[in-house]
Amino acid sequence: MLSAVVVGTGLIGTSAALALSNRGVNVHLRDLDPLAVRTAASLGSGTGQPPEGVVDLAVVAVPPAMVGRVLRALQDEGVARHYTDVAGVKGGLEQDLGALDCDMRRYIGGHPMAGAERSGPLAARGDLFEGRAWVLTPTAETDTETLNTALELVALCGATPVVMGAAAHDMAVGLVSHMPHLVASLVAMRLTQAEGRAVSLAGPSIRDLTRIAASDPRLWVDILSANAGVVADLLEELAADLDTTIGGLRAMAATDDAKRAHGAEVIEDVLRQGNTGRARIPGKHDGRPVRYAAVSVLIGDQPGEMARLFTDAGRSGVNIEDVRLEHATGRLAGVVYLSVAQESVALVENTLQERGWRLR
Amino acid sequence: MLSAVVVGTGLIGTSAALALSNRGVNVHLRDLDPLAVRTAASLGSGTGQPPEGVVDLAVVAVPPAMVGRVLRALQDEGVARHYTDVAGVKGGLEQDLGALDCDMRRYIGGHPMAGAERSGPLAARGDLFEGRAWVLTPTAETDTETLNTALELVALCGATPVVMGAAAHDMAVGLVSHMPHLVASLVAMRLTQAEGRAVSLAGPSIRDLTRIAASDPRLWVDILSANAGVVADLLEELAADLDTTIGGLRAMAATDDAKRAHGAEVIEDVLRQGNTGRARIPGKHDGRPVRYAAVSVLIGDQPGEMARLFTDAGRSGVNIEDVRLEHATGRLAGVVYLSVAQESVALVENTLQERGWRLR
Repeated sequence: MLSAVVVGTGLIGTSAALALSNRGVNVHLRDLDPLAVRTAASLGSGTGQPPEGVVDLAVVAVPPAMVGRVLRALQDEGVARHYTDVAGVKGGLEQDLGALDCDMRRYIGGHPMAGAERSGPLAARGDLFEGRAWVLTPTAETDTETLNTALELVALCGATPVVMGAAAHDMAVGLVSHMPHLVASLVAMRLTQAEGRAVSLAGPSIRDLTRIAASDPRLWVDILSANAGVVADLLEELAADLDTTIGGLRAMAATDDAKRAHGAEVIEDVLRQGNTGRARIPGKHDGRPVRYAAVSVLIGDQPGEMARLFTDAGRSGVNIEDVRLEHATGRLAGVVYLSVAQESVALVENTLQERGWRLR
Repeated sequence: MLSAVVVGTGLIGTSAALALSNRGVNVHLRDLDPLAVRTAASLGSGTGQPPEGVVDLAVVAVPPAMVGRVLRALQDEGVARHYTDVAGVKGGLEQDLGALDCDMRRYIGGHPMAGAERSGPLAARGDLFEGRAWVLTPTAETDTETLNTALELVALCGATPVVMGAAAHDMAVGLVSHMPHLVASLVAMRLTQAEGRAVSLAGPSIRDLTRIAASDPRLWVDILSANAGVVADLLEELAADLDTTIGGLRAMAATDDAKRAHGAEVIEDVLRQGNTGRARIPGKHDGRPVRYAAVSVLIGDQPGEMARLFTDAGRSGVNIEDVRLEHATGRLAGVVYLSVAQESVALVENTLQERGWRLR
């Protein structure tokens, strides 16, 4: 069985320590703040005592800017046979570690793709990583045993390992997380000066689009600063497409028919490419998009309506793959969209109608 | 009781006719396509026979480009005492009607903010507008009786009237619907060329952000063409903020400490303004944002899990304000986020834990 040192008992470190301890791993906790170690230990995530010998794995879960120095110090101390970290951006770090002359054979970069609204050991949960992707970024120097030890860590945490290079990782998280985050903020920003009556027309589209714009700005400044070059490149590509789109709209607004037709083509192309890109986003389970159709049901606002709806929908024996609740303007009523496999729509609709539900 | 002619028996026209007929209004249906009229009439939305005298209200529900000519012809014919339409963009139309010398005292622009994935009379539903905003755009010329008749139509359809000028309406829908739609497409477009492994890291953030990018391109070309100038202006404002953001990120990636600090300030300002704008988006009920907190529950993927969860959550007596289901990567399990009033979080969490649910 693995033995481990977890350095840095914040949200991520303590959650990993909890997951490992729950699976019987001997976990030793370290943090500059002795109170944080005591708190993490009191949750059952490990012991504050140092290990007697060399452990198998050191998980460096300190703030990203400190990873390099901490890793170098741990390797000098000879704490573990293998080392990994949990920083959200990997490329710059890999260079820093090289410059610090760390032993890169015994280190592998890691990024568990999970988080929570709160930070610190008290927000930790042993199941934080369950079902999440955990990226590992080996280099040509990485020892196979180091990779395998990290894979064991990922498996013990219940996460799904994804192996890729550091640069590819940073590009990927820039694309699917950092760039969209700033775009959501930019769209939400447009509402700050708008008239109240205009904002009152906001519906589910812009609400879903700007959900992540509600996140903590300081946390995101830190995340973005470590990947600023990549995100700037991605936003420049977006800016070029945006210019094309604005050109298309201006042409559409022209009086000349040929110009208008050209503008419409430009815009249709943007919308079609949007369709194509959207269709690539993985659905649930194994990452392959699946076709679902929505059954739309009108519900009241009483407690118990949703339970009654799911109980009745359950009688069809069909699995509800996703659910979305849309609220009505100025009313207590709403619409629930239940996603089910396309071939099951009629069955679910019939089952619900028989039980008195109003479909929409 | 009101009498009405509905001209154009597509989705919107037939749905309005159904809503009016359900409330006892005498509805006469007209369409260039006699089959569409027969279909709409067979649904119980009204009669294909012409009215014997002048009706109270004509609802013009033809494609946007045809509204001007149809309205002028109806007014020449003297079909109704008052006229309205349902086109999604109002400013250009108002100018067209003036140029066509329509009687602007007896006309009021309308825009019911509802739709469906399908079109045509067979997709119609009498409850399509229930709880939705229905914008009315009177001018200085509009007769008060015309406004009141339109308000009666909106009330009979179960919608919530919002009165604003045509230009303000077009700006508002540009802001909360048209501009975000193109932005979602532009972000989704960035995924078309990305590596599969990068796209596989896509999580709930980009999934929610790009949901509307899956819509029908042709339909949206039509919508955007009628409001192209307004949307282009909004996107240009966005482009300016985007440039500032790219500049901030480039500064953040610099080696100079002062530059980096300046870049971080620029980005933090964008994120904070995003917070502010996002907070203005109305929650449910009366348009005032309400503070909710999420209870996060781990669930399995068996049919019945959601019913069991809602039944158990219902025992707390607390109203579930919203629900979001997040799927795990490569797993059957998922997390359900239940939004409840902040003061009810502990009660719901205790109720669920007592019944064996794993909170997250």
